[in-house]
Amino acid sequence: MAKPRSNISLSTNSSFHEPQVYNHRVSQTKTLSSYIVSSRYEQIPGDVIHEAKRSLLNFVGCAVGGSREPAVETAIRALHPFSGERSALLLARPERFDPLYAAVINGISGHVFEYDDTTTMNYIHPTPPVASALFAYASANKTSGRDFLHAFLMGFEAESRVGNAVYPAHYNAGWHITATAGVLGAAAAIGKLMSLSTQQMIWAMGLAATQASGIREMFGSMAKSFHAGHAARNGYLSAVLAKSDFTAGEYGIESPRGFAAVLANEYDLSKITAGLGEDFQIRYNTYKPYPCGIVVHPTIDGAIELHAKYHPALEAIKAVRVHVAPLVLDLCNKREITQGLDSKYSIYHAAAIGLVRGKGGLGEFTDEAANDPAIRRVRELVKAIGDSSITEDQSRIEVELTDGNVQSCFIEQSLGNIHRPLSDRQLEDKFRDQAVPLLSGTQVDRLINLCWRFDQLQDINELIRATVA
Amino acid sequence: MAKPRSNISLSTNSSFHEPQVYNHRVSQTKTLSSYIVSSRYEQIPGDVIHEAKRSLLNFVGCAVGGSREPAVETAIRALHPFSGERSALLLARPERFDPLYAAVINGISGHVFEYDDTTTMNYIHPTPPVASALFAYASANKTSGRDFLHAFLMGFEAESRVGNAVYPAHYNAGWHITATAGVLGAAAAIGKLMSLSTQQMIWAMGLAATQASGIREMFGSMAKSFHAGHAARNGYLSAVLAKSDFTAGEYGIESPRGFAAVLANEYDLSKITAGLGEDFQIRYNTYKPYPCGIVVHPTIDGAIELHAKYHPALEAIKAVRVHVAPLVLDLCNKREITQGLDSKYSIYHAAAIGLVRGKGGLGEFTDEAANDPAIRRVRELVKAIGDSSITEDQSRIEVELTDGNVQSCFIEQSLGNIHRPLSDRQLEDKFRDQAVPLLSGTQVDRLINLCWRFDQLQDINELIRATVA
Repeated sequence: MAKPRSNISLSTNSSFHEPQVYNHRVSQTKTLSSYIVSSRYEQIPGDVIHEAKRSLLNFVGCAVGGSREPAVETAIRALHPFSGERSALLLARPERFDPLYAAVINGISGHVFEYDDTTTMNYIHPTPPVASALFAYASANKTSGRDFLHAFLMGFEAESRVGNAVYPAHYNAGWHITATAGVLGAAAAIGKLMSLSTQQMIWAMGLAATQASGIREMFGSMAKSFHAGHAARNGYLSAVLAKSDFTAGEYGIESPRGFAAVLANEYDLSKITAGLGEDFQIRYNTYKPYPCGIVVHPTIDGAIELHAKYHPALEAIKAVRVHVAPLVLDLCNKREITQGLDSKYSIYHAAAIGLVRGKGGLGEFTDEAANDPAIRRVRELVKAIGDSSITEDQSRIEVELTDGNVQSCFIEQSLGNIHRPLSDRQLEDKFRDQAVPLLSGTQVDRLINLCWRFDQLQDINELIRATVA
Repeated sequence: MAKPRSNISLSTNSSFHEPQVYNHRVSQTKTLSSYIVSSRYEQIPGDVIHEAKRSLLNFVGCAVGGSREPAVETAIRALHPFSGERSALLLARPERFDPLYAAVINGISGHVFEYDDTTTMNYIHPTPPVASALFAYASANKTSGRDFLHAFLMGFEAESRVGNAVYPAHYNAGWHITATAGVLGAAAAIGKLMSLSTQQMIWAMGLAATQASGIREMFGSMAKSFHAGHAARNGYLSAVLAKSDFTAGEYGIESPRGFAAVLANEYDLSKITAGLGEDFQIRYNTYKPYPCGIVVHPTIDGAIELHAKYHPALEAIKAVRVHVAPLVLDLCNKREITQGLDSKYSIYHAAAIGLVRGKGGLGEFTDEAANDPAIRRVRELVKAIGDSSITEDQSRIEVELTDGNVQSCFIEQSLGNIHRPLSDRQLEDKFRDQAVPLLSGTQVDRLINLCWRFDQLQDINELIRATVA
């Protein structure tokens, strides 16, 4: 845990719990809230604005692509009777909801494909919780592209920095950090658009911190994508309550009973405020080339490379050994796979699709692909070995053939990671792959164009309407 | 942590995290869900039904009494625009909301006075999260008293048993256990009324587990009472989603990434299922005689006793020493008090009101009382000493006078604890104290009568309507 510069113990002698030490006079909650409230659009550098557009382009593509998934359909069916005034459009869906439920559904659509963005510092999928709330808000309350982008960046900072402070202990304990940090990001973003005062923003952060939830046991079920929508909705709600002066604890993030201390064994509060306003966290954002758990990406890269290089005959494969970072086995160890959803969290499936099909697109994570006999056979031959000398961006694959030969490959940096980012063009291609099954070519071109012109839009509803078939 | 009888490690070799061991074949989530689904009203013993009525009488009184508090008014103002079809009455309020928001408001009303019930096993305030959801559901969906009581008891079991499993490590880490366990109780109760299948109940438990949130940094702010409403609403939502077959992880409570392992360092899963259907947890429920943090109650008892016995002249008091369990200082150490809300968490205020006024009613926790010069003066003379030989039901008070004399008193069991329970008549008196400022005497009598006849009511709306002035 980080040592604040000057320590004051707020809590007292308890035989039950050793209180965390924090500094009441240096409140990270207050510093962060104050920054968000006072930030001006003109202070944001151009490269940061461009990266925000890339993040939003990527997110809108995911939300369009995911919008017909059973998790989305089921949630709409279940929640429809509870909606308030239907003042918000959904992304890529014809139904209307009140903006809080719209935030839930947008979050499920945007996250369900596991194709969303990932910050390299903390494995958060940062855009869905924040942008889902913002699109819902902006649909019901006329919002310009500039204001949206600015609020998005404020939410991104809040979410990423709180995530940085508690990563990795928080994530390793079993929290779905996209949900738990995401709710703070959504609160910050909506709070910015609602023009909260600093005091209200502090309460919004507290209300978000006390709603932070989402456990990794839900991975592989519909509840996982619900996490992103839940975080978006609850962050939005936090801002709404704070705007009405509904009070919360003042030290929601840093107190001995606050977010960091309660949800992580180790944390570094200094990461919340260091370089605030200069070191924009969106610069560390990355975009997945494959719609599945990011830690299996280097393995897909390697398997595709082996497929392209050697075209190994499937019946000649005797064994496949994959050496990966130990975290991969913690996150993506699913062996029994009958559904597309499960296959997204399987290091075994990742190796198999690359070797069998030479690609890892949407078609490789369907129920059909999960039950493809060729993929299944190779999947069963894969052995995954945790190796702490290998990073989460790396993978070493060895394919042992029946004739005794071994084909191997080492991926040092996976495609889409911070050192090999997808280009704007590759992001557009990814967008098209997801959107084309649902929208006309003209509509897809128009949507891509609208995303690049985000800062010039007078009303974000123009873009939202363009996502609906 | 409890050792399951036969251990299977589900998770794998991770260098980051030592996985908790659990038994996939003995799923506590499934056993609990299956019990809730299959339980029949006729199987519930008479004393358990009577205790449920006592709990509900106590809760309705708290909700009536708390219904005009600023936290309630503020939440209603903020949430009103988002309500869906206004098919549910609130407790003790004229506004109507959709049942999910009605659950939020009922929870705030019922919890805000800090006058609610407490289970002795785990310090949960068990009734607000469960009953708030049930009254909201029952107002929008015609429900008999028997079905309501039955569902309430199922929710109570789920919440208390999950709480027992993780207490005290979970609470000591900084979680507000009323919120975190409460959401599971609300899901179980609403799931019972919605006739979920066992599979759906398992999903509802998972969806509730993954929404479990609420940190103790919020104590002393409006966000604390929001926790009860938030838990009620999210538990209700979990049942609604599960009823539509929105899936969740199957081992929401016991898996290495489930509720117990993620939210507690130590836990005993066997407490979730031991004696299920026989050892009803509501038998361990208690009701507060004073509207404040329960751990300061023995100190109020003792201070009242000293006041009655010696009538110490206030100006003659030189010092007050209170010896209490160390937890008291962890929970109720507020010294700087200007508002009634703060005074509910102050061991110093607790001693002062007993010595100055000889009672601890609603009037002793108002803004007026917090700023009463006599109370403030005595409060500043109080020193609290943590003593691990003293239990949380005990307190030793010494009042040192300017003439050198010392008046002292030891409370071995505080009024209202499991060994000195409030009688039915005392519960009625407490109900009257809270309701009389808002309702006519006739209406109060009628409400009390309706609570005792709960199992005979054809439609719970009869009782809900009677709470509105």
